Amino acid sequence: MSALTFREAAPQDLEAIIRLHEEDELGSHGDAWTPENRPAYEAAFAAIAQSSENSLFVALDRDEVVGTFQLTFIPNLTSRGALRVKVESVKVKGARRSGGIGSQMMIFAEEEARRRGAGMLELTSNKTRTEAHRFYERLGYTRSHEGFKKKL
Amino acid sequence: MSALTFREAAPQDLEAIIRLHEEDELGSHGDAWTPENRPAYEAAFAAIAQSSENSLFVALDRDEVVGTFQLTFIPNLTSRGALRVKVESVKVKGARRSGGIGSQMMIFAEEEARRRGAGMLELTSNKTRTEAHRFYERLGYTRSHEGFKKKL
Repeated sequence: MSALTFREAAPQDLEAIIRLHEEDELGSHGDAWTPENRPAYEAAFAAIAQSSENSLFVALDRDEVVGTFQLTFIPNLTSRGALRVKVESVKVKGARRSGGIGSQMMIFAEEEARRRGAGMLELTSNKTRTEAHRFYERLGYTRSHEGFKKKL
Repeated sequence: MSALTFREAAPQDLEAIIRLHEEDELGSHGDAWTPENRPAYEAAFAAIAQSSENSLFVALDRDEVVGTFQLTFIPNLTSRGALRVKVESVKVKGARRSGGIGSQMMIFAEEEARRRGAGMLELTSNKTRTEAHRFYERLGYTRSHEGFKKKL
């Protein structure tokens, strides 16, 4: 593998990003790059791009999108007002898993969080993803919380 | 108990909010309303107030702040770009616990999330807070995820 590069996602990356969501049977929530879904994804992409508190990244191997993740910067009062960063929608291309892409993405996320002055990184991971849990623990994350969701 | 009212927090509520954090021995992260900490809280409060994607609320019984919580609205691609709402820093005044304040706050949070067009509510809760977990499950939340944190 050549060295990965990271940059914020551009509109022309949207299809490749949604293809990574599609591959992820567990967390996919029915996501698929179809003509019917496309306007909803474009609207969400625009909302992320306009937000100064959200950054959507792609990991590239040369020109190929091999991973993606989103950072949400959350101002809050806890810990004397330390900025928090939520890492979300972490996806690696199926054919490229176990090749270190995830680790490189998480290291980049941590650098970006420090650069923005954050005091805490946080993320949630579906309880069935036991391999991912070991991966996050190896990276120094503590599995201290229960994660709850409610669909509206 | 008279009916609670809810509104976005104003600068003059900041001390009362931090007092609620102080009372919470588990999640307090050393939070205390001291002259040394005050500038950091004021800066974080201003950052929340300026953010269109964050709202800090207080629950009032007449003029008394009896609870607080923060909503973070997160644009994202998952589930065809459905807006997510993270509920964070949920605190009820110690002397007023088990009196239904938490439920009323969570109902208000859900209404606010729907009003903003969200498709999903999410929150994390420290693994030791077993009573809180039952509370969230009663409110229709599914404990589907592991929550990871890393201090920077």
